[in-house]
Amino acid sequence: MPEGRVDHALLRRLAEAVGTEHVFADRERVEPYTHDETQGLSAWPEAVVLPADTAEVSAVLRLAYEAGVPVTPRGAGTGKSGAAVPTHGGLVLSLARLNRILEIDRENGFAVVEPGVITEDLQNAAAEQGLFYAPDPASRGSCHLGGNIQTNAGGLRAVKYGVTADHVFGLTLVLADGSVIPAGGKNRKDSSGYGLVRLVVGSEGTLAVVTRAVLRLLPLPKSRGLLLAPFASLPAAAGGVEAALCSGPTPSALELVEGRAFGFGARIKETAFPFPDAEAHLLVEADGETPEAVAADLERIGAALLDAGAIDVLTATERRRMEELWAVRRAIAEGLKAYTTYSGVDSVVPRARITDLVRLARAAGAKHGLDVVSYGHAGDGNLHVNLLRTERQKTDAEWRAAADAAHEDVVRAALSLGGSISGEHGIGVKERRLLPLRHTPEAIGLMQRIKAAFDPKGMLNPGKVFP
Amino acid sequence: MPEGRVDHALLRRLAEAVGTEHVFADRERVEPYTHDETQGLSAWPEAVVLPADTAEVSAVLRLAYEAGVPVTPRGAGTGKSGAAVPTHGGLVLSLARLNRILEIDRENGFAVVEPGVITEDLQNAAAEQGLFYAPDPASRGSCHLGGNIQTNAGGLRAVKYGVTADHVFGLTLVLADGSVIPAGGKNRKDSSGYGLVRLVVGSEGTLAVVTRAVLRLLPLPKSRGLLLAPFASLPAAAGGVEAALCSGPTPSALELVEGRAFGFGARIKETAFPFPDAEAHLLVEADGETPEAVAADLERIGAALLDAGAIDVLTATERRRMEELWAVRRAIAEGLKAYTTYSGVDSVVPRARITDLVRLARAAGAKHGLDVVSYGHAGDGNLHVNLLRTERQKTDAEWRAAADAAHEDVVRAALSLGGSISGEHGIGVKERRLLPLRHTPEAIGLMQRIKAAFDPKGMLNPGKVFP
Repeated sequence: MPEGRVDHALLRRLAEAVGTEHVFADRERVEPYTHDETQGLSAWPEAVVLPADTAEVSAVLRLAYEAGVPVTPRGAGTGKSGAAVPTHGGLVLSLARLNRILEIDRENGFAVVEPGVITEDLQNAAAEQGLFYAPDPASRGSCHLGGNIQTNAGGLRAVKYGVTADHVFGLTLVLADGSVIPAGGKNRKDSSGYGLVRLVVGSEGTLAVVTRAVLRLLPLPKSRGLLLAPFASLPAAAGGVEAALCSGPTPSALELVEGRAFGFGARIKETAFPFPDAEAHLLVEADGETPEAVAADLERIGAALLDAGAIDVLTATERRRMEELWAVRRAIAEGLKAYTTYSGVDSVVPRARITDLVRLARAAGAKHGLDVVSYGHAGDGNLHVNLLRTERQKTDAEWRAAADAAHEDVVRAALSLGGSISGEHGIGVKERRLLPLRHTPEAIGLMQRIKAAFDPKGMLNPGKVFP
Repeated sequence: MPEGRVDHALLRRLAEAVGTEHVFADRERVEPYTHDETQGLSAWPEAVVLPADTAEVSAVLRLAYEAGVPVTPRGAGTGKSGAAVPTHGGLVLSLARLNRILEIDRENGFAVVEPGVITEDLQNAAAEQGLFYAPDPASRGSCHLGGNIQTNAGGLRAVKYGVTADHVFGLTLVLADGSVIPAGGKNRKDSSGYGLVRLVVGSEGTLAVVTRAVLRLLPLPKSRGLLLAPFASLPAAAGGVEAALCSGPTPSALELVEGRAFGFGARIKETAFPFPDAEAHLLVEADGETPEAVAADLERIGAALLDAGAIDVLTATERRRMEELWAVRRAIAEGLKAYTTYSGVDSVVPRARITDLVRLARAAGAKHGLDVVSYGHAGDGNLHVNLLRTERQKTDAEWRAAADAAHEDVVRAALSLGGSISGEHGIGVKERRLLPLRHTPEAIGLMQRIKAAFDPKGMLNPGKVFP
């Protein structure tokens, strides 16, 4: 484990590398870098450094490496597992200044971007040219593509278009010692050596810092429509997931949302939401070439959901109305954070087990005296189970104990269903003690040897992923 | 490098592990294991062993590891880069007896298979349940899923559905020392530790032996149609690729085939092919929910191709006629092998550079007095460039020298266009000396450290991938 300190000599050399104004250690400026979106988790770095390009990232890492100072890379700080929290002090390396869309290559169907680009900005830049960056995390308006890559973010459209890993074809990597490794490129397929790109995606900043990415762009679907189906109960809504998936082509989004979860989003957006008394909803999007094809898809899915017990089916094809509904959905996480004390579990199970997961998660909450509010990407088996503090936890210590116990119960429940710990948020700090529940000692040992292949001294994002 | 020998004691212990009839060292039975489909490449192992399941694979690897004997894993032997050729002697470990489809999990959309299953058998088993295993190597009737995984095979439908890596969600891995590591599973997304599954796909048997795989199944497209567009020249046909891709949704196959290449396939199939005098053809498949949607897609693409200079456009929607055309396409490789002496380059470039690749490949052949016959998956920039011996090479040595020089020129041409060495066949033995043209020394060093993380003694498939 690195044990060096950020002394004046190092600060001076960092300032030489990136410019004085881009290195700082004063508490006020450093404070925003002490936490991400993980409730109840923070740690102070000794300093923050903001390089501007690959060469500066390399220089910063080399200086830290020589000084034995740990480095925590950071994107937008929208993570929910603490991967960007500098638990070991040292330097925070923010990639926020590497924020350019370098190229939209229409002919080859790729974007070349720096990691600090906001996901929605790339979506918009691609759409202007009739192209489509498919990964769509709920936090797209604020999260960075670099963070999406490092967590292998999923989001709303993964059910049809896959996760971030499926869209990353090239990366420029900077290793802990500062060496720069170009990997992949604009080739749709490439069997020429190991898949370094595929390995680094989802490694949570522990293997390499990404300074440039080549991301696939698809043809932009010309038409889109949304369907909202309220259900009397959460299990009934969960049962509708399979009905929707089996009715035909895969929808472009298939979200399961408890009515109370929508309530938090609606409160943030200061708006109302249809059927506020329904215990749960399915929110289903279809996309396609023509309005007729989309309408046919939604009609088919709607019929399947009514058969599966939906109270009603509302359809929206007008762009503004769709955006309003999605905005409420996207605001749920912000609402939970604003209005509750909670612990989130990013559960994932094989998709047909989502009903079982819903039942077991509720039982885990009840056992420990916590409320449970769930929502998420049910079409790919990924449900954000949120454990909410109630009046039964009199002290913060009681709350933490109950939350930790219930959290572990939910993870164990998902694993018992063939699931995993985290579908898209990553392990970070928050889940690392649970990693041995998912992976055998041999598998964890192998991962640690892979870590050492990239970063033998353990300088990069120490204290993350591994127990 | 491992230096142990297969002695009587080891053979006896192997026989105890897998049964006497499944270990052999006599020349006649061993001969089929000395080569794959790579012309002009063979090597003799000391013995061949055929375990039946994960436990036996583990036992075999542990015994070899303790004896210091190298192991070359082998699937169906349909590879084209020599990855299954035992260049270092020792043991060939055939996975042919692990040949069961263990489960078609309709609810979750996954198949669980052993590596020795023939790809087409899984496609058929899935289709019987209305499901679709999308990866479709031309050799699907004989290749193994395990080989597809280890080369990250692409095939005819990668342009729409991606390569094998995009469909592999779980693997049971056996490392060189015999340790068994389960990785991934039936979750559509999983950000819980490093992506071991994604790393092992495409590693050509150098990191681990795969004994079980969880493969994604999609809903089976209900309708399908094929379009053949002859062009007067190969560059004109290459130009049509971009026209087809830009005309709307991505087709499910987009093949560029020289007329002479079709000729080799037609000769194998003892059939005729339309427009035999056209210098090149595009073969385009569309799939979708309804015959009307597919017909509309093909009409749109056909119009774009006529605009791009196609001589004519023939459409086939009758299943039998489509299968006849595809059968000729799939037989090209067999025809080349049967009727020519050739060296194949599995070139890949960013897809908009395919016309440049065609031009540079022809120039490379001409420079060295070789014929060039190209065909392949132009929709994803992957073109199989075949360098054919002509009467100008009087001796085998002259032929080898010309082939090697032209081969390297084609690879350099692809790289100069932003491409890579191999799109889907892998590096194996054949391309390993060229790896440094693609990757920096730092990147190759990192890959070698990853190799050591899996296999510190270098026991598994030595002499492959690395220069």
